[in-house]
This record gives sequence, structure tokens and C-alpha cells, in this order.
Amino acid sequence: MSINSFGHLFRVTTWGESHGPALGATVDGCPPGVKIDAADLQHWLDQRKPGQNKYTTQRREADEVEILSGVYEGYSTGTPIQLMIRNTDQRSKDYSEIAEKFRPGHADITYWQKYGIRDPRGGGRSSARETAARVAAGGIARAALGVLAPDLQITGYMVQMGPHGIDRAGFDWNQIDQNPFWTPDPKAAEDWAVYLDGLRKSGSSVGAVIEVTARNVPAGLGAPIYAKLDTDLAAAMMSINAVKGVEIGEGMGAASLTGEDNADEISMGPDGPEYSSNHAGGILGGISTGQEVVVRFAVKPTSSILTTRKTITKSGEDAEIITKGRHDPCVGIRAVPVGEAMMACVILDHILLNRGQIGEELPGKIG
Amino acid sequence: MSINSFGHLFRVTTWGESHGPALGATVDGCPPGVKIDAADLQHWLDQRKPGQNKYTTQRREADEVEILSGVYEGYSTGTPIQLMIRNTDQRSKDYSEIAEKFRPGHADITYWQKYGIRDPRGGGRSSARETAARVAAGGIARAALGVLAPDLQITGYMVQMGPHGIDRAGFDWNQIDQNPFWTPDPKAAEDWAVYLDGLRKSGSSVGAVIEVTARNVPAGLGAPIYAKLDTDLAAAMMSINAVKGVEIGEGMGAASLTGEDNADEISMGPDGPEYSSNHAGGILGGISTGQEVVVRFAVKPTSSILTTRKTITKSGEDAEIITKGRHDPCVGIRAVPVGEAMMACVILDHILLNRGQIGEELPGKIG
Amino acid sequence: MSINSFGHLFRVTTWGESHGPALGATVDGCPPGVKIDAADLQHWLDQRKPGQNKYTTQRREADEVEILSGVYEGYSTGTPIQLMIRNTDQRSKDYSEIAEKFRPGHADITYWQKYGIRDPRGGGRSSARETAARVAAGGIARAALGVLAPDLQITGYMVQMGPHGIDRAGFDWNQIDQNPFWTPDPKAAEDWAVYLDGLRKSGSSVGAVIEVTARNVPAGLGAPIYAKLDTDLAAAMMSINAVKGVEIGEGMGAASLTGEDNADEISMGPDGPEYSSNHAGGILGGISTGQEVVVRFAVKPTSSILTTRKTITKSGEDAEIITKGRHDPCVGIRAVPVGEAMMACVILDHILLNRGQIGEELPGKIG
Amino acid sequence: MSINSFGHLFRVTTWGESHGPALGATVDGCPPGVKIDAADLQHWLDQRKPGQNKYTTQRREADEVEILSGVYEGYSTGTPIQLMIRNTDQRSKDYSEIAEKFRPGHADITYWQKYGIRDPRGGGRSSARETAARVAAGGIARAALGVLAPDLQITGYMVQMGPHGIDRAGFDWNQIDQNPFWTPDPKAAEDWAVYLDGLRKSGSSVGAVIEVTARNVPAGLGAPIYAKLDTDLAAAMMSINAVKGVEIGEGMGAASLTGEDNADEISMGPDGPEYSSNHAGGILGGISTGQEVVVRFAVKPTSSILTTRKTITKSGEDAEIITKGRHDPCVGIRAVPVGEAMMACVILDHILLNRGQIGEELPGKIG
Repeated sequence: MSINSFGHLFRVTTWGESHGPALGATVDGCPPGVKIDAADLQHWLDQRKPGQNKYTTQRREADEVEILSGVYEGYSTGTPIQLMIRNTDQRSKDYSEIAEKFRPGHADITYWQKYGIRDPRGGGRSSARETAARVAAGGIARAALGVLAPDLQITGYMVQMGPHGIDRAGFDWNQIDQNPFWTPDPKAAEDWAVYLDGLRKSGSSVGAVIEVTARNVPAGLGAPIYAKLDTDLAAAMMSINAVKGVEIGEGMGAASLTGEDNADEISMGPDGPEYSSNHAGGILGGISTGQEVVVRFAVKPTSSILTTRKTITKSGEDAEIITKGRHDPCVGIRAVPVGEAMMACVILDHILLNRGQIGEELPGKIG
Repeated sequence: MSINSFGHLFRVTTWGESHGPALGATVDGCPPGVKIDAADLQHWLDQRKPGQNKYTTQRREADEVEILSGVYEGYSTGTPIQLMIRNTDQRSKDYSEIAEKFRPGHADITYWQKYGIRDPRGGGRSSARETAARVAAGGIARAALGVLAPDLQITGYMVQMGPHGIDRAGFDWNQIDQNPFWTPDPKAAEDWAVYLDGLRKSGSSVGAVIEVTARNVPAGLGAPIYAKLDTDLAAAMMSINAVKGVEIGEGMGAASLTGEDNADEISMGPDGPEYSSNHAGGILGGISTGQEVVVRFAVKPTSSILTTRKTITKSGEDAEIITKGRHDPCVGIRAVPVGEAMMACVILDHILLNRGQIGEELPGKIG
Repeated sequence: MSINSFGHLFRVTTWGESHGPALGATVDGCPPGVKIDAADLQHWLDQRKPGQNKYTTQRREADEVEILSGVYEGYSTGTPIQLMIRNTDQRSKDYSEIAEKFRPGHADITYWQKYGIRDPRGGGRSSARETAARVAAGGIARAALGVLAPDLQITGYMVQMGPHGIDRAGFDWNQIDQNPFWTPDPKAAEDWAVYLDGLRKSGSSVGAVIEVTARNVPAGLGAPIYAKLDTDLAAAMMSINAVKGVEIGEGMGAASLTGEDNADEISMGPDGPEYSSNHAGGILGGISTGQEVVVRFAVKPTSSILTTRKTITKSGEDAEIITKGRHDPCVGIRAVPVGEAMMACVILDHILLNRGQIGEELPGKIG
Repeated sequence: MSINSFGHLFRVTTWGESHGPALGATVDGCPPGVKIDAADLQHWLDQRKPGQNKYTTQRREADEVEILSGVYEGYSTGTPIQLMIRNTDQRSKDYSEIAEKFRPGHADITYWQKYGIRDPRGGGRSSARETAARVAAGGIARAALGVLAPDLQITGYMVQMGPHGIDRAGFDWNQIDQNPFWTPDPKAAEDWAVYLDGLRKSGSSVGAVIEVTARNVPAGLGAPIYAKLDTDLAAAMMSINAVKGVEIGEGMGAASLTGEDNADEISMGPDGPEYSSNHAGGILGGISTGQEVVVRFAVKPTSSILTTRKTITKSGEDAEIITKGRHDPCVGIRAVPVGEAMMACVILDHILLNRGQIGEELPGKIG
């Protein structure tokens, strides 16, 4: 059971390898009558596309998405939407070394052990290239959310590169798309440019922390106990390549707080409950409160580096390895649109789930 | 779709409220022929049971588990196992205040908004009492793991209470069950006792970080892309009450590392691959490497505190609330056996999944 | 993966054996705010209860259902509803013969081969006693349908006993609960009484065909391609013990029709489309038309008979077997309320599914 | 939730419309290391392909399958296999009439009501063209079965056309692929040729009954209670376009039998249990016995006929309709390879499920 699907009612199955003929997503459960435009999907794919600037891998992929089904005269029909992206830049590279040796910190060795066969070209199925399919599917989710939750805004951004975090005092939503790192802190953007240039030139790599915020999320989304909104978000983010940690709201820092500090006090506002703070990250008991939903995840550094590392071969001999060629000094950059896409898919899925069990209006009015 | 189940092949559905007649777990997919002993299940339940010492809630529950189905003459039959725990200490308390006012930081308000009805007694379904059912189910998983992976050892322990972390240099597996905090660092246990006593007396509460380690996990477990072993562990832990962050291996700290530092170098040992370090937490590409699987999660402080907090009523009026009565100054303590239970369920599930798709032997031998 | 659950959003898991302490159903996904009354559930259980008349097994079971969770002050809370039925008449019978020999036509042999262990008392998990849990769950579904589709009427009845079919010309809805066979044809009821008396006295058994009709089903229910309304109904009915065939509308007879005969012609009525006939059984392309949904299923005769049959023992020796004691000469009688319960569960599930993807109004108005 | 997937561990999602750019199947959970050859898949697709003889629709489709992922150097990698079939003969026909009027007995009206939008060209998603994707997926299942159950043989054939059944006395396996009707009775083949010629010329259509037999099915497959082998087969077959009834073994006829007649007596043979008959169709209690698994399903006549039928328009006006152009006088013919494909998918899925829960050997040996 390889389980290449996620979602309950809005269900996405991705398929494809880094260097096969194509990759894509089968999107099932989209409501009918949603305007679906390949150009809109392309907008999101272009954000994730490699080779956008010197800080991301120089692989050249058009990442053009074709809609093969489920859309008629520009609108979703309620039947499965097949999104296909052709691989074009499968550079005729010699993969014999990677085919024989395992990169430390990479899925090479576990895929081999588990399956006894793997496509070594570009990492095959374990490549971050799979995330292009997520971004395409996320575009469908955003289109549906545009109808079902028109005020919803999903924004991802980088809050830490290597050991260097942003200054929250300098947080500016408008800065996020003004720098190659999708960071809301313009000062951090400057510093990181210098820092990453150094890493890039030395053939090294570094990790990052991405935050994704959803504003104007309807209250009442979530399906306790085992498909809580935060549980599904944690699973969605942890499923992204190279992610090692996920936080909701206060996250790991919640451990340090007292009950007094952690309580987001409630008062009655003109449009419903208001909160004095948002340690909860917009979710209580697995159900959205109506506050901003805030998720963070840590992306580890890529294991494809120019420094020699010790490893073994498939025949079990000790060896050394060095990964030449194109690589991402900070793959976290390209994870930003992926995190946004996962947020969109999870929220749409929970809107549909909630509507299924509860209906279109929440029964519990306050006031 | 309230989704009270988790797991793919080993599938657990929990049910029940804090103050209803009973709660329990329906466990489906256990292999047949596994010795199931109510006393063994009780061993794990007793660890989570309230009132064990002055640091946990003084509610008195026997937490006695009854096996109602799926076991014949002491062995699992392969049919669903129903585990029921009667609630006995449903103290005749006045819940009228909690029924009308929402505790800040608690699921009170979201359950109300979503469902328009909730059992306010003890938190109803949102109560951490639900985790007793997880621990019982985890006992079934452990019994099956005893047959399928007899060397596996799952151990949970506390590594941080409030802002106070353990000293990893003083880590001693044998200390874990020698103190009320399940911590491997005896010095931390002493300090925390003083610290928590103070919090308890002042009616405050504090968060914690729990780590769960699985040793001797077979290589090859995991179902990329969307049911990676780490994804399923993240979901399992995030689904526990009050959890706000989950980390695998290096976790959020992976963001700060360079590719050189993060690479767990590989060499060939007498029994297969060996690793110079374990930043990966035993999982690469969503598949277990055979190293220790290491998960950490942060538990927020309970919102039931003796300090007055601002809130609103169901009718939308501003109000103040203070939660008297039994409470846990550090609910993280009782989350330790719950984390272990979730680890057991996830690993068993993935052993069955792997056996389903791959068979009993991994095809990719090294050397 | 023993898979003891069915349904997508309204999801029922049954558990329990014929002679264990109890059996029941875990019902997940019921909308909140539905009035749930144990007495109402009991009404349906009493219909299925053994020992109601001389034509059904003389086992004495009160079949009293306890609601252990998910209902607060008489209304569903949206959390899982646990329904438990204690087994009371576990007659201290000698099961040693059945434990060693396999009844021909019974699950004895396959359960043994697959699991290597089975509870032989009363058939264990393979007993039709499991259907009591379905009926209880169906009672929950009916309560929710009472809110969501108040005009819906689900009626099951027997249309054939052994080789003797009813005369459709004599079909009278009001006769169904006037005879022990739930048949709408009073003449058939008389004839069958004589016929079945003969079979009962000779210790023989016979099969039957049950039809379940749902009237006032909303149009638009169904989830093509693989969870069509008819597909889910077929699975629901085929999962009942002893069922060997399922038909929708014209059923197997559709093979004999020409396209002209099979076309249910459409005209416009005051409240929407009307149909000249209902060969389709109320379902086209897997989606309900608004006509009556008509399902039929065949129940084979019970294999517990007083005539000696050849079989083998667990040790592989040839043997003979005869099943003494309580038995049902026509188990089809007690399958009537079970078929109704499955219909109720499937329709509710599809109402929730439809509401999830589509919303509360169908977008495709006619006229 | 449109639910375009089926299967538990071997999971197939189909996508695509009759006249869109392409259709296909996403196949997840195939074991790794299975030889997958596009030419082998093509073999099965060619059987279902339209225009093979004068008895099937004259639409010209190459039905060439492309493997886009999941196969490396000719072997499955354990990752999802994407199978794509381009639509080539999308004849530039005028669909305006069908777009406005609903064909009686067709999904036109229900798709419209439910979704408010549909692709009218060739029936869109409700077209039997979707079954090409099933046949392709079935080819993957057969390849895996070739490894896991090498003796297994799956054979579909027609046993009834319109009111004309075969003579079981003349059953000859070798005749099945010797006539355009896939019937084992050469005399029936002759008669049906004449009969169908008449129907074809008059622009009429007729139903059929297809039987699919699996020989050398391992004992022990099946997942009671709600994913019994027969339940999953019933769902698989009922999900095929135009199917209205499904039978296992004796099927609807089981209703007419007595317990004595229906008991397949057991004796011990050299290789295990042997049965005197197979009323059960190879399945007892939802688990395979090792006998032949026998499934039958009825296919209704196509609703595209040359006779005028009464209907309504989208605007709710009464109208008449006649369907000109290419059509299948007996679509049952082309359902034969589809039924085989579904059988292959279900059996493989249950082999994987059984291996997951039970392991590679059944624990219950006899003798």
C-alpha cells in the first residue's frame, strides 16, 4: 500500500517521477461549477518552478500543466480532474554513481531496501519534483475556496534560514513577494542573500522554517478526534519532502508556557468572539476558532552537497560520495508555495467535511 | 464526518465521553493468534491512570478494561476487539458554569460552535480521558508487535517541563520509571518536583515536551508519499489532546543545520548499514532506516487553572472564568504512555502495510 | 485488515460474536442535534429479534440496546455513538462437534483456514447475530433521516420463499406487518405458513428473496464512478450473512429487455420529472432519480439442518455432520429488517456525501 | 465526494471523459518488481476496444496505453503507475440535441440534476469509455497476480443475450475466444449472431448476462464483515456501467434451494478439502474456499436506440428523442473484458490484504 493520496472528500493522488515522461495529480471531489483556468494553476506552479533565481536549482522545467479531465468549458464538472506536467529537462546525465551508492540523508537507501528497485534518475519518486503536482492540485483547491470561502487568504513565507530567524517586529505582508526568499522581513532578505551566496558557492546547503498563515478561516472546521484540523495540517506538511517538524500556533514553544500565559482570552466583538492572542494558532480541540490558522514547518538541508561524505554501495562496500550538478542551496525556498498548496487542500477538504456532517450553517451561534 | 478512527490496516476507533457510562476502542485488523491478556492491557492503562501521585489529577478511576469481543480463549481471532472502560468517578459536580461559559484555550467554544450541542461534563468528548482508549488499543498493538517484531522497544519519556529541559549527558534509560515524570534525567526529576509543586499549589499549569523512541524498528516501514512513517507519526501525536508541535529526529532544529552536518554518514556493519548519527530520527524518505525512530511532541498547559481569565458566555456576554476542582498541573506527564501507545499503533500498522504490499522479506538486500 | 466498517461519512463499525459477552456498533459521523431514543432503536431491534414466532430460531435474546456514548440529554452530539447489546442466552451447549467438524455451506471452514482460530460457539463472528448491530445502527440512520429527509420511507418485505414468489397483483403495503413473513401478499403469507411448517418439522431450511424499497428518496444521491448509489447498496446487501445475489430495479431481468422496453420515459410533472416506469430502480448512472429506489437480494437457506451431510474434521478426516438445536428454517425472514437498516445507512451516507461535495441544493434545476 | 477510486491496498482511480483529450487510471499499491509491459496491457485493451466487429460500436479508437510513471526498466517500482489513453476519434458531431434533452434510461438527467454541468459529448464521464481505464488497470493486476498467484486463471464469458441463455451442457472453455460474443457455447454463438443482426439493423439494443470465473483462487481471501470477497466483487461489478444485478455462485437462485440442496458437501482430497458442488461460488462467510470463484452480472440494454422515446428538455419541456449515430446493440459484449479486469483487481487486492493481516501462509491447516 504505497498510499499516494491524501484528503477525505477533496482527495488528491499524485504520481510520477523526477525523470519519467510526466508527473501529475488526480484530483477527486472538487465541487462542480468552479471556474478552473490553466493559467491560474500556472501562476502557482511558476512560483515553485526551479531556476527562478540563482538561489534555486538551475534545472529548466517549463512546468506547464495540462488539464486532461474534469473540466468542461472552463468549469469543474464534479468528476476527477487530471493534471499532467511533462518533464522536459531530463538532462542526459550519468546516474551510475547515484544508482550504486546511497547519498547520506537521502531516501536512496530506504527506497532500495524496501522496494529492491528504484528509478535513480533525479531521485525518482522521492524527488521534490513530486511537489509540483501538489502545487497544481492546490490551485484547484484555491479555485474552489474562492467560491466557498471567498475571504480566505493563504500566505506562506520563510521565517528562518539556517540559524537566522526574522525579526517579527519587521513583519510586512507586502514584502513577501518582493524578495527571492518569500520573507516578510526585508532586512532578513538582505542578510540571507549574502549568507546563501556563500553557501551556494561552497556547494553546501542549509535548512529553513516556513510559516503558512490562513486568514479568514471559517470557524467550525475540523473533525475530532483523529482528523482534527491541526492533525491533518501536521500530516500534510510532514508529508512534504525534507520536512522534520511541524508546529501549530505556539508549537514546541507551548511547552514553556503556563496556563495563564497560554490562555487566549475571549471577548465578544461585533462579528462574534474575539481573542486577546493566538497561541492556539486558530485551532482549539481540533476545530478552527475563526482566528488565523498558523502552521510552521522545518525543512532540512538538501543532502546533495559538494562535500565528500562516507557511504556504502548496494553491494555493501564502504565508499565516499559527492553530489555534483544542479542543486538547491536552500530547498526551503521552493517549499513555500508547496506549504500554501497543502494548506489550501486541507482547508477545502474540511469545509466539505463540515458541510457533509453539519450542513451549510454552524448550529452553535453565540449571542 | 467526525472521523474517530486512525490507522490503515490496524485500525482503531475510539468512542466515549469523560462522564458518560463508558468509553473504549474498537480495534480492527489485529492479526489472529496473538495472546491478549486483560492484565497486560491493564499494565499500560495503570500508567496513564489519574491520581497516581500528587502531580496528576485526583480523579479516581479504576480504568479497568473489559474485552468484549475478538478474543477467544486468550488469543485474538482476527475479528474486531472491543475494549470498554467504565467511567466510575463521575463526581456529582455542578457543571452549570462550564456549560454556559467557555474556558479560554479549551475546546469548549469550538465544539459549541460546530455542533450546537456538547456534553459539558468533564469536557465530554474533548476530554483527555479519551486517551485511555488509545492506551488500551496500544496494548493490543504491543501484543501483536511482540509476535511480529519481538526486539522492538518503545519508550516514552519527558525531556522538558515548562522551560526546563533535561541534560542529555545525564540520560539514563533505567531512570525513566523511577520518578513520577518519566524522565531519564534524575537531576531534572528532582528539580521538576520542586517546580511543579509550586505550580500545583498556585493552581497554575505548565507545558512539556515528550519524546518517544522506538528501538529495533525494522528497516523498510513506511508508505510514501502521503502515509510516510513520519507523516503518520506526526498525525498520531498531533491528534493527542493539547499537542501543538511534533518533531522527527532533529525536528525544528534541522532548519539550522547545513547539509554536511545533517548527513548521517553510512558505513557497513556486520548486520547491515550503520550510521554515524541520527539526525533523521530513523526515517528517510518516509521509510524507516533501522535506526531508532525518535519523535517528540509538545503538550500545552491545561486551560483548567485557578487564575481568573476573561471569556464570554453562550449568549455572547463578556464574563470571567476560573476552573476549580481536580486538575493536572502538567498534563504532559500523563501523555507519556499515550505517546507510546500511538507509536505502537503506527508501527504495527506499517508492519502490516509493508507485509501487504511487499511481503515478509524486504527485496532490497545490501551486500 | 478485517474491515468491519462500512460507509463513507456515516460510518458504522460492528463488533462482537454470537456468544461473547456483548456485540454492538460504533456509529461515527451522525449529524449533531438528532433526537436519539433507545426505545426507538429497540423498535427496530425487536423486529429482527429471534424467537418472535415459530418460524424463527428459538434462541431467547432480549436484544436490549445500551447507548454508551455520543448522545447527550437525548440528542446526538456529533461524536461517535456506541451501541451495545449484551448476549444473554448463551446456552451452555456442547460445541465440541462444531468445533471439530465444518458445516457444509457454512463459514466454519474458511474462518478456520484463514485465521487458524475461531470462536465456534454459535458461529462466532460469522453468526447472523452480527446483524443485530446493523439494525441498531440503522435506527440511528433512520433518526437522522427523519431530520434530513423527513418524507423518506424505507420498507422491506419478502417477495419469494423457496420457489414460491408473491403475486405482484396482490401487493398491499398495509399487509407487510400483518404476517410473520413481512410479505405484502396475504395469499402468499397463508401458503408460506403451511410450506414453512413442513420444512421446520423436517429440520430443513429454505432460501428467500427480500425486496427493500425506499420512497421519496431525494434526486441527486450517488457518487459515481465507484461509490454509485447502486454500487454501495449492492455492497451493503451482499455483506449481509447468506446473501448470494443483489438486484437493482429490473435486476438480472434487465438482460432480457430491449432498449425500447427498458427506457423509463420521462415527462414533466408539477414537481419535476416523472417517469413512465421504473426499470432503473430509481438510479441512473449511479445517481438517484427521485423515483423509488428498489433493491432485492437473495438469502440462501441456513446450513444448520437436521439432515446428515458429508464433511471433514480439522484433522482432515472424512466425517458426517448434523446440526441439532435451535435454527431458522427461513433466515430470510429475519433479514428483512436488516435489509431496511442497510438501506437507511447507505441513503444517509449519500445524503451527507452529496451535501459535502454539492451543498444543500442540487445545482441542476429542470424547468 | 465523487469517489473515483476502488480497492483497499491495490487502489485504482480512474479519470477522464469520453471526448476529452485523454482518460486513464492511477494505480497505487502494486507490489514492486513486477514485469509490466505496455504490450501486455494492450492485449487486454484490444479485447474491449470498440469497432472490433459489426456487433460493437463503430467508433475507431486505437486505445493505446502509455505508462507515465511507476515502471522503471520494465518493472514496477512500487510507486503509483499512471496509465493514459488518448482519445482520438472525437468525431466532430453535433451534440446540441443531447445537451438539451435527456435520453431515457441514461445518466444524462441525473448528472445534470446533481452537478448542474456535464460534458454531453459522448456521455462525458458517464460513458462506458471509462471502462478502458479499468481494463488497463486490470492488466497491471494480472501482471502482479502472475507473480503472486501464478496458477490463477480469470475468464469472462457471456451466458445470456436478451432472453437467450446458453446450454450449460455445451460449455467449452476453448470456444470462448472463437466467437464475437465471448460465449463458451458455439451453438448459442450462431443463434445470437442472427438475433443480434436483427436488433442492430432495427436500431434496437438488448441486455446480457456475463459470468466471470476465477480458477485456482487461493483459499483464505476475504475480509469479513464488510469487505467480504463477495461484497467487494458485487461492488466491483455493480460499478460497471449498465449493470443492474450481481450474483455469486447460485445467486438469486439460492432463494429456491433447501439447505440440503445448497450444502456443498466436503471431503478430504490429496491437496486439501474438496467439494461435491459449488453453490457457494467459491466463497463462504466472505472468504474464498479454494473452489472456483463464480460471479455473474446483468447488463441492461443501451439507451441509445433508433426508436423515438418521450423525454423532457433541460428547460422542463416535454420532447421526443432518438439517438442516431454509432452505438452498441449489445454493450454486454464489451463488458466481458471489463468484468475480468474487475475480478483481477479485487483478487489481487484481497491477496495483499490477506498478506497484510495474516502473512504469507494461512495459519489454519487442515489435516
